[in-house]
Amino acid sequence: MTIKYNNVYIKNTATIAGIYEANGPLNKYFDKTYTNDLYFGEDTWEKAEIKLLKDTIKLLLKKEKVKDKDIDLIISGDLQNQIAASDYAIRDLDIPFLGIFNACATISEALNIASTYIDSKKIKNCICTTVSHNMSAEKQFRNPTEYGTLKPETSTFTVTGAASILLTSEKTKIKITSGTIGKVIDKGIKDVNNMGAIMVPAAADTIYRHLSNLKIKPDYYDLILTGDLGKYGKKILINYLKEVYKMDITNNYNDCGTIIYDTDKQPVIAGGSGPACSALTIFSYIYTKMKNKELKKVLIVPTGAIFSPTMFFQKETIPGIAHAISLEVVE
Amino acid sequence: MTIKYNNVYIKNTATIAGIYEANGPLNKYFDKTYTNDLYFGEDTWEKAEIKLLKDTIKLLLKKEKVKDKDIDLIISGDLQNQIAASDYAIRDLDIPFLGIFNACATISEALNIASTYIDSKKIKNCICTTVSHNMSAEKQFRNPTEYGTLKPETSTFTVTGAASILLTSEKTKIKITSGTIGKVIDKGIKDVNNMGAIMVPAAADTIYRHLSNLKIKPDYYDLILTGDLGKYGKKILINYLKEVYKMDITNNYNDCGTIIYDTDKQPVIAGGSGPACSALTIFSYIYTKMKNKELKKVLIVPTGAIFSPTMFFQKETIPGIAHAISLEVVE
Repeated sequence: MTIKYNNVYIKNTATIAGIYEANGPLNKYFDKTYTNDLYFGEDTWEKAEIKLLKDTIKLLLKKEKVKDKDIDLIISGDLQNQIAASDYAIRDLDIPFLGIFNACATISEALNIASTYIDSKKIKNCICTTVSHNMSAEKQFRNPTEYGTLKPETSTFTVTGAASILLTSEKTKIKITSGTIGKVIDKGIKDVNNMGAIMVPAAADTIYRHLSNLKIKPDYYDLILTGDLGKYGKKILINYLKEVYKMDITNNYNDCGTIIYDTDKQPVIAGGSGPACSALTIFSYIYTKMKNKELKKVLIVPTGAIFSPTMFFQKETIPGIAHAISLEVVE
Repeated sequence: MTIKYNNVYIKNTATIAGIYEANGPLNKYFDKTYTNDLYFGEDTWEKAEIKLLKDTIKLLLKKEKVKDKDIDLIISGDLQNQIAASDYAIRDLDIPFLGIFNACATISEALNIASTYIDSKKIKNCICTTVSHNMSAEKQFRNPTEYGTLKPETSTFTVTGAASILLTSEKTKIKITSGTIGKVIDKGIKDVNNMGAIMVPAAADTIYRHLSNLKIKPDYYDLILTGDLGKYGKKILINYLKEVYKMDITNNYNDCGTIIYDTDKQPVIAGGSGPACSALTIFSYIYTKMKNKELKKVLIVPTGAIFSPTMFFQKETIPGIAHAISLEVVE
């Protein structure tokens, strides 16, 4: 199932990034960066993450000179248990809220839901937003950071940042033209340090369904962009699509995890991950490229490994999911 | 913002309940009950919870004589971190998936999203489902159950069960006529043993906005039904609506937490809670009453306390949320 949209446009975005992201190749595309530490003036990492998310929403409202009560709906999710970053950032806003969880595929789930609400004229506008924080994610999902545990080279590095987008029914230069909702796919991988490989089958299934449902070839898009497969996952996806689906995306494919960082020079192992990885990359760099018409048709496919430490300790494998959204410049 | 729906109907439901629920007043309304233990043949509580959810979806498909590939979309959420119960139950199904988190308000968030997708003709049908498990919730949110910690009388008791509903654009006798998405509201309460009080302001705000947006009075409905405020929260809501909104719901109001159990006779303290509390009650008992035309117009308002143990340990207060959905018998 791929849904077509006729009345959904990007009004504006707001992005705030942390140190590693500010030191990466996308620095000049972010609205705001932090360069001192990862606390941002708060006393815990979780509160720092809440602050990032709240600030990016406020920045978006400020850029558009609107108040929270002018917004019909906000859709948000994050990696904290109970999506606490979203809940606590949004409690100070007077906007109806849908809380979602799809790990690092959060922003594409949000964009799919928001597009349906706007296209069906149920609402006029919607903010979609997400956040991740390297330290709060390490603490919750991996090892206490004080351990200084060494990591395999297929590990990814959780992006610290928040990114918000305002979608509207009012015509702008960039349109959301269609979307494909992903399925939960689990091919039996248990390696928590190889999330890229875990997400590949879900990404491949969604890309294949999106293109075949719309009866278009990969080269319809200037760029097909996955979320956070990282430098190894990226290669696996290209081969997987060739082998399983006889589809070649070599010439117009990239992954946000390898765009947001310089994986050769920065200490980020296989590249960026976390829900903010794709949201930050798309709402800053890709959005600018599209406004400048350097990219005209982009299929974004944020990917998520739905990793539960509890299920992992119970010897379970890790499922993945990926949702697609098609962005097109309107002439 | 209240959204009206014209083409969304309830096709069928499926409900599976645990021991305490089987021993309660709704026993005869459940499709299936467990009466031995809370493991249901699995070796952990989390896996038992996954089994409940998966079985209720399969039961719904079986009742309707359809396969998973006949379903356009499934929306699910639960209390496990990373909504693991939903992720792991749904990985075996060939259905596009939207994962949501809104604690015990999960099912009303799902119904709102599903109704928008169906009403706008983007899809033809959608399963909304949720689950909760007393033991996995106690383990994750409260005290190790082995402690046998005594609880204050305002505590609620997490319902063990799963409930699924199939919504469709095909006309049936029960229609979803409108919905109101809730806001995150935090009035500064920190008492984890008084979730009812925490959720009252959110429930009141949603009920008030729903009725005033539609320009109807509380007596438009045969029943206004909150999710899991429990016997104390219920009284607080009645008074709060009177005092703050000058609105009287005394005559046609009840709470699922006090319907699913006999709070005078069963060891459930102030009543039921958990996302399955309202979903089980509505999809079994209320659904039957509506099919029999004993109730013709019901406003369901599942409520959620968005409780994060991490934020609680960081001295934060607890926010609440409530979404409303209007169910009406079509003559």
